Amino acid sequence: MEIRALTCDTYGTLVDWRGSILDELQALGRSRGIARDWEAFLDEWKSAYRPGMDKVNRGEWPWTTIDVIYRRRLDEVLRAHAITGLGEVDLEHLNRVWWRLHPWPDTVAGLTRLRRSYVISPLSNASFAGMVHLARFAGLPWDCVLTAENARRYKPAPEVYLTAIELLGLAPGEVMMVAAHNYDLAAARSHGMRTAFIPRPAEYGPGQTSDLAPESDWDVVARDMEDLADSLGA
Amino acid sequence: MEIRALTCDTYGTLVDWRGSILDELQALGRSRGIARDWEAFLDEWKSAYRPGMDKVNRGEWPWTTIDVIYRRRLDEVLRAHAITGLGEVDLEHLNRVWWRLHPWPDTVAGLTRLRRSYVISPLSNASFAGMVHLARFAGLPWDCVLTAENARRYKPAPEVYLTAIELLGLAPGEVMMVAAHNYDLAAARSHGMRTAFIPRPAEYGPGQTSDLAPESDWDVVARDMEDLADSLGA
Repeated sequence: MEIRALTCDTYGTLVDWRGSILDELQALGRSRGIARDWEAFLDEWKSAYRPGMDKVNRGEWPWTTIDVIYRRRLDEVLRAHAITGLGEVDLEHLNRVWWRLHPWPDTVAGLTRLRRSYVISPLSNASFAGMVHLARFAGLPWDCVLTAENARRYKPAPEVYLTAIELLGLAPGEVMMVAAHNYDLAAARSHGMRTAFIPRPAEYGPGQTSDLAPESDWDVVARDMEDLADSLGA
Repeated sequence: MEIRALTCDTYGTLVDWRGSILDELQALGRSRGIARDWEAFLDEWKSAYRPGMDKVNRGEWPWTTIDVIYRRRLDEVLRAHAITGLGEVDLEHLNRVWWRLHPWPDTVAGLTRLRRSYVISPLSNASFAGMVHLARFAGLPWDCVLTAENARRYKPAPEVYLTAIELLGLAPGEVMMVAAHNYDLAAARSHGMRTAFIPRPAEYGPGQTSDLAPESDWDVVARDMEDLADSLGA
């Protein structure tokens, strides 16, 4: 069965969320005269990601976008770090830093090559709007946008992958999930999708301990998105 | 309230389905030595559109893509015109002519200008996959793809417009529906969307009698997509 489409995890796999957000936090600190440990700040902010999504997947929360999950946590972390004086416009702009993340150096070139031979789409836990705006900001040349919001469940819930496969009008084996995270590929494979692992050992900074290497015999393991294009003959 | 996004009807509004399909049918006839009244053939094929969608909207059929609706009708119309000898690959290729439609001359230039200032998306009764492939074929520079399939209902059912507005993360008044069909704009307006009418008096060929002019005070009436870009200052 031929691969027709690639669905790509985005945070970490295609864009450097940590470096991009640290840059913005440090710039904000300089411009407002706020000195804080921004790495700790970001770690605490990001820590809302999995628990919030799990609450949605378990049905404890109604569908809630990751933007709303991060905004609730942002308000808490700002209080914890005694940062005051930011108005609602500032806060909303800061929260939308997740829509302004820079791609890894190989991302746009790799996607541009892959698009010549395959339908390419994100398949992210981002909000749909967030992924649309991130694509505009980072120049990601998608054919379409698919996110957790299309299924109102978060990866690795089955509905996210199954909704993407159905909307693409393909058989599972015609769709390849591309991710820097083994858990995402394991879920995709369990539904019959093809899998490609792209290690991003700097995603979480110098102390990263997880996802440094493939943890299964994924269909493709590539150094980066250009190497993936080479592997797939694109 | 500022307009942030444009959702565009596609068949007829942005692409010339009738001219594109007649060209393919005539070419097929020449290559296979089949002489038929292809205009009548296409009229009969296209006539499955509204009744099939209405069956889905009334709950008489489960969700069924327009590709499947057209394929059922294609098989009937081929029989009615005593056209035989086409294999399954030929038939599926012919049915996917709805994925290979040429844009009107102003479409790509207009969308490209509008995209600089607005998020742009289709909002079509096409299948999601069909709209993805049509965008690749016709060079439509979408930020994302939204179709009836995202709501599993067909326009003018409310769910189609409401799903698009929610996924775009906007208020209804921040989204403008662009269409060559008054019924589509009336539905969009009833949910608080802004409206732009683009007449396409040749969509149904020389005998077209409907949608020749705006039938309400739509927010914008423009000659074509470039004129719409002018009107919106894009």
